[in-house]
Amino acid sequence: MPWDLTLTDLPDLAWGAALLGTGGGGDPYLGKALAADSLAAAGGPVQFLDPEELPEDALVVTAAMMGAPTVVVEKLPNGKEAALALRALERHLGRPVTATMPAECGGMNSMVPLISAAQLGLPVVDADGMGRAFPELSMTTFGASGLPGSPMAIADEQGSVAVVDAGPDNRRLESLARALAVSMGASAWMALYPMSGADVRRTAVPRTVSTALELGRAVREARESHRDPFAALRETLPRTVYRHGTVVFSGKVVDVDRRTTDGFARGRAAIAADGTGSAEGACELVFQNENLLARIDGRTVAVVPDLVTVLHAESGQPVTTEALSFGQRVRVFVISAPDRLCTPEALAAFGPRAFGLDEDYRPATLVP
Amino acid sequence: MPWDLTLTDLPDLAWGAALLGTGGGGDPYLGKALAADSLAAAGGPVQFLDPEELPEDALVVTAAMMGAPTVVVEKLPNGKEAALALRALERHLGRPVTATMPAECGGMNSMVPLISAAQLGLPVVDADGMGRAFPELSMTTFGASGLPGSPMAIADEQGSVAVVDAGPDNRRLESLARALAVSMGASAWMALYPMSGADVRRTAVPRTVSTALELGRAVREARESHRDPFAALRETLPRTVYRHGTVVFSGKVVDVDRRTTDGFARGRAAIAADGTGSAEGACELVFQNENLLARIDGRTVAVVPDLVTVLHAESGQPVTTEALSFGQRVRVFVISAPDRLCTPEALAAFGPRAFGLDEDYRPATLVP
Repeated sequence: MPWDLTLTDLPDLAWGAALLGTGGGGDPYLGKALAADSLAAAGGPVQFLDPEELPEDALVVTAAMMGAPTVVVEKLPNGKEAALALRALERHLGRPVTATMPAECGGMNSMVPLISAAQLGLPVVDADGMGRAFPELSMTTFGASGLPGSPMAIADEQGSVAVVDAGPDNRRLESLARALAVSMGASAWMALYPMSGADVRRTAVPRTVSTALELGRAVREARESHRDPFAALRETLPRTVYRHGTVVFSGKVVDVDRRTTDGFARGRAAIAADGTGSAEGACELVFQNENLLARIDGRTVAVVPDLVTVLHAESGQPVTTEALSFGQRVRVFVISAPDRLCTPEALAAFGPRAFGLDEDYRPATLVP
Repeated sequence: MPWDLTLTDLPDLAWGAALLGTGGGGDPYLGKALAADSLAAAGGPVQFLDPEELPEDALVVTAAMMGAPTVVVEKLPNGKEAALALRALERHLGRPVTATMPAECGGMNSMVPLISAAQLGLPVVDADGMGRAFPELSMTTFGASGLPGSPMAIADEQGSVAVVDAGPDNRRLESLARALAVSMGASAWMALYPMSGADVRRTAVPRTVSTALELGRAVREARESHRDPFAALRETLPRTVYRHGTVVFSGKVVDVDRRTTDGFARGRAAIAADGTGSAEGACELVFQNENLLARIDGRTVAVVPDLVTVLHAESGQPVTTEALSFGQRVRVFVISAPDRLCTPEALAAFGPRAFGLDEDYRPATLVP
């Protein structure tokens, strides 16, 4: 059944989306603020559709922001970029868009479709193409299932807009989009992966927006009633496509090695046990925009596409890989990847070796 | 009256276009070869229209290649890129293109519209937007007259194509196109500056293709009958929009300082007098892709937008700024800029100061 997302849902959604964003997916504060502006201006809720409710021949277009989150905070968007990109793609395709959909989960990218949907009076599909965040727009369940990201529209805050078609080659599309995003000032807004309702059902990770909302709500309610928020997450996840999740390490960030190469924030973080968790020793995280891998005392406990998120021990806020810094007291929370991220095609596109990690994917052992 | 350009005209056109290309505008050999292929495949001539013959509401789209000529020779085009870009722009505009037109003069860029015109059965307008070559696509008489280069289509040899709209901002369009061209592998093919027949008449430099052809023919015929080819040029130019031209220096290249910065080939060349010309002393050339300035013994004798071309003393072939090298015996030929390059708006867009040269434009003194 269609359901409405209102202004008051945004904080819970932002929290859950940042958790599923695994350290990436954009700045939650800015994403929430932009979505709040659009919902307030629209004067009403945004309608969400379950993938099962889409007509076979619906035209669904995903939405995402590309670029350095640090830049977005300094070069403020005008709020109309996502809608400009969507309309440009619609015009190129020559038929009206039925609904928009997030391309990935994340503090910013779960919000982008809300912004354009509120402005244009469109519904949003409760699903996405990653079930988490990934650093490249070719790394989607859509692409792993053979769908092209092309044609794609990309727009900036000055009103420049481009429609790019790389045919079936999603990696080339990624490189053309990234060149434009850099030239647009390191942040740009996209409409891409145009697909049918049947394609959404066949390829998307379903119900990730309602899941993010539910996880955010569960944690908030646990905090408000002085219950353990991590227990609330553990209890909620089995009712979702994610099934399992648990804290694998608690400690203090003692080292962060981060460098920006080829437009990505790559690096490692070391966390030393502080005695509050069950684990002893040291935890190492490897990231490329998103967290890719968690090792405890040299043993891999979780690797991409499983979700590794770092949470502030006190505030419980997800910490993006850009915000990781020395001295933070954190918990490392691991969530099992939905089935659609674990097919052979999916693992070829965004399994450990796609990131240059020398290991095979083995599902994290998380049964409580 | 419409006139036909045939296969046998290509060598003369290539020579004249390279002369007007002032050291840039792309590789004459490759341009000629691609145009010859297309004309041969079409099995007939390409029709040229005088700007005065265009209907007021004709839709004219200019064509150009962007990128490093050195790369084009290594990453060979498939020959269909220019037509792909033209068709993408036509589709975006939603109406058929009446004719194509060169964006600039040059060994490659005078040929690009021939390629797509032969393939698509379109006529070419005998005019262009520079009357020479310039390093940026915002540096056109079209742009100086207030016409937008947007929307623009850009395509590569893999079949990727993008339509870019930067509104009225031609410098932003240039930077987005250059980012795409670099990402496409440092060479890409464009359709841009869509305009009406009335716009062509109001803003283009007229009859530059027929002029290039006429200059090439005059020089060839002079050589064949053992007359002075430079005298032939001097006699032909007054019948064109260029009016005057003459050899200002003869000598040997004794130094070339060339570096590639920001995607441009910038530098200087020094030529020492060899006693064959009237001038003594030394000639210095300053270039950015194209030759911008010629000084003799420290005194500026020609500066952009006047045309400065270097010709091989023996072969009489125009030498591109990339091909300048120590020991070449050359002549420096200067041609006065057509009126449309010398308006205040034009000089603001591509006069000496637009290239960071600390002088004002003063027309070269060339009356024979």
